[in-house]
Amino acid sequence: MSEGTAALDLLRAALGDRVDTSPASLAAARADKSGHAAAGHPVAVVHARSVDDVQQTLRIATRTSTPVVTRGAGTGLAGAANAGTGEIALSVRGMDRIIEVRPDDLLAVVEPGILNADLNAALAEYGLWWAPDPASRAISTVGGNIATGAGGLLCAKYGVVRDAVLGVDLVLADGRLLRLGHRTVKGVTGLDLTSLVIGSEGTLGVIVGATLKLRRLVPGEVCTIAATFPDVRTAAEASAAVTASGAQPAIMELMDAASLAAVHALLSLEPPTPGAAQLTIQTDGPAAGAEADAIAQVLQRTGGTVAVSHDREEGERLLAIRRSMHPAMETLGTALIEDVSVPRSALPAMFDEIARVEREHGIVIPTVAHAGDGNLHPNFIFPGEPDEFGVIEAPDYIWRAADDLFRAALRLGGTLTGEHGVGVLKSRWLADELGDDQWELQRQITRVFDPQGILNPGKVFTR
Amino acid sequence: MSEGTAALDLLRAALGDRVDTSPASLAAARADKSGHAAAGHPVAVVHARSVDDVQQTLRIATRTSTPVVTRGAGTGLAGAANAGTGEIALSVRGMDRIIEVRPDDLLAVVEPGILNADLNAALAEYGLWWAPDPASRAISTVGGNIATGAGGLLCAKYGVVRDAVLGVDLVLADGRLLRLGHRTVKGVTGLDLTSLVIGSEGTLGVIVGATLKLRRLVPGEVCTIAATFPDVRTAAEASAAVTASGAQPAIMELMDAASLAAVHALLSLEPPTPGAAQLTIQTDGPAAGAEADAIAQVLQRTGGTVAVSHDREEGERLLAIRRSMHPAMETLGTALIEDVSVPRSALPAMFDEIARVEREHGIVIPTVAHAGDGNLHPNFIFPGEPDEFGVIEAPDYIWRAADDLFRAALRLGGTLTGEHGVGVLKSRWLADELGDDQWELQRQITRVFDPQGILNPGKVFTR
Repeated sequence: MSEGTAALDLLRAALGDRVDTSPASLAAARADKSGHAAAGHPVAVVHARSVDDVQQTLRIATRTSTPVVTRGAGTGLAGAANAGTGEIALSVRGMDRIIEVRPDDLLAVVEPGILNADLNAALAEYGLWWAPDPASRAISTVGGNIATGAGGLLCAKYGVVRDAVLGVDLVLADGRLLRLGHRTVKGVTGLDLTSLVIGSEGTLGVIVGATLKLRRLVPGEVCTIAATFPDVRTAAEASAAVTASGAQPAIMELMDAASLAAVHALLSLEPPTPGAAQLTIQTDGPAAGAEADAIAQVLQRTGGTVAVSHDREEGERLLAIRRSMHPAMETLGTALIEDVSVPRSALPAMFDEIARVEREHGIVIPTVAHAGDGNLHPNFIFPGEPDEFGVIEAPDYIWRAADDLFRAALRLGGTLTGEHGVGVLKSRWLADELGDDQWELQRQITRVFDPQGILNPGKVFTR
Repeated sequence: MSEGTAALDLLRAALGDRVDTSPASLAAARADKSGHAAAGHPVAVVHARSVDDVQQTLRIATRTSTPVVTRGAGTGLAGAANAGTGEIALSVRGMDRIIEVRPDDLLAVVEPGILNADLNAALAEYGLWWAPDPASRAISTVGGNIATGAGGLLCAKYGVVRDAVLGVDLVLADGRLLRLGHRTVKGVTGLDLTSLVIGSEGTLGVIVGATLKLRRLVPGEVCTIAATFPDVRTAAEASAAVTASGAQPAIMELMDAASLAAVHALLSLEPPTPGAAQLTIQTDGPAAGAEADAIAQVLQRTGGTVAVSHDREEGERLLAIRRSMHPAMETLGTALIEDVSVPRSALPAMFDEIARVEREHGIVIPTVAHAGDGNLHPNFIFPGEPDEFGVIEAPDYIWRAADDLFRAALRLGGTLTGEHGVGVLKSRWLADELGDDQWELQRQITRVFDPQGILNPGKVFTR
């Protein structure tokens, strides 16, 4: 009897019909939305419904030395939640309750499987919201947002996930439950393990609850600015000029010429001027109008053709162009969606590097950027059809180009991943950014949480 | 030859006149501003001038197994920087340069020894500021602010230290230098060790540099509201009502009757109505005036006598009453300044608990609170004169009362320390808040950074 079978028998005895071995479920658990799939398929998918289910699963995993891959909605872009041969796929998607909303304390306590958008719909009734807004927010879970340190469009103004989580309940590899963090605005009792868990991609434990720091819905109008520029470098310089001017837009998105052309074609819009790049900017709050006007002046001075809308619906139509990026890329081929981040002043130089990589590697890399915070998503396009689970591995020549681009971002003072995480796809570059000493130290920290190394092995800390 | 002597000889050989063994320096390094002093005195005070000085000190410490206590300006309130028998006091106060200010990227890179106020004076020339504003800002260092996770008056609106630090350069116990974090708004490459170091109180390494996230100076007027209430519970309820109303003051400070009376006496102001408590509130930004008016209405509805000032200087005069708390306490006796934090809605209940502790233990506990974020500073007053270094240990009956108060804060969903840290003074309660499992896990994490246990032993993780 293999170890996988022993674990499966124990799981079934403990958890009954929450243990799923249907071929479709096992196959689906191999992949996320990165294009990568794990080799083989997992022993089982456990559909946890409670903290106790998670604890039982981990105790069995520890007892049988079986690896555990925690999954939410499977929308990751780095392969971190992909489960393969001999592994238990532990889904917390079904743990999706809102336990508590406290408008007076501006916090909520939730289970990890709730979708970001569902949470925010519920919070809106209290006049509240949770700021992290990954582009996947309609389909991704709060637990996954925390586990990956997900970003989004609003981060320059409204912060990243670590700014929006006060505490995390974590089940360790051996099944013990820890309550990390606090319910207070301030709290410095001991080490900040909550922050350590944010972005740890399933390597430290299973997030089974979170205490979230909320904001009040922003009053006032929303103004939207669309500005086109003759080329992407000029657009990048304009976005840096907006930041340098002291304005703080809620959203500032940049689309290069290839992205813009593909989206216009998809949406049957008039083709943009060849080579033209676009900035789409939103301001909000009580001073939204004045701030939009000030930004428009900066954009005009930097060579932009600018249109300002004070109408929320018109604004949404303008942003729809940006939001159509992903389907537009699918019309060009298969895309490896990358995620480097650079200091905002380095955005123009980073676009120069992308152009160089395109030229030297003979590929096209349509790129969008959260220009307000310096996070770029270069889409490496290659031919090929994904299989029924959306899986298609990027070929070596694409990874060589990506390697070139990653190193350029690091040279510019940037980072490998702004918001998608390391997962499987970027683990071989991790030590290049961290250095060998820090890499080893981080790996040792994971061993404190998980001495047997059963939590998401082969992810993040492999090379 | 004792180990201390061996270390001293090696330090002198390596660092020459940066090794200070004058009796006055050794005595000063025993204490911070908590009233606690270490037993005995350290082997030497090393006045580091460079990263290399710190690395050499740590290498010698590791080679000779000598404990190292890192110090900045010595303004801590938990004894975490107090160095005693057989220990090296490593001062980074002299490493006080601003390495880089990047207004376009809203960041600065600094050495740890720069005073918070000096940094902000320099940043003001760029129209920038670093938000953490502990009450000690004129005399405390940025490195110390980071090492303790210092808070301040502005945290509810402008965040805590972990929201304002992008990266930290850390020298490990064995002298290796790690560069943690990033220069970008977003970055999720590997574990967030920057956050782990924030608030770690010298147990993980020596902070020798920091990349700080800056804000632009807030435009617009500043409005100040002073409101008096018949008793402290009503004032606490009013502050909770302000938060619940959706207003976001920059500052909201509460003083109870004993605090208010002591300050009025110190400043030779007319005595306040017996029993009366006061809220002092500031709003800022473009909507400061409207927000102040809205807050004033909430305060009136909750029974306050309210005065609003739109004059910045008059506002500073009103806040001066709050800022005179510390000297006013010194007129009453010696104060053990405590630092619990509770969810904002629990502030009234926490004041009830303080009144109960006063009654049951027969002591007075004048209390001020950062009411906007739920952080209270109960001052346990006892008779006694501090020695020439400001040292006087609190007697057992005061600690019994503090114990009672800590447990009340934990029962209300609060935390032992909002912004001062654990240090020596609160280490015996740490496991009460963390639980034994998390306590042990945190201690094991410190061992990954410091296998020999030479970094600040006897602090935080002792019981």
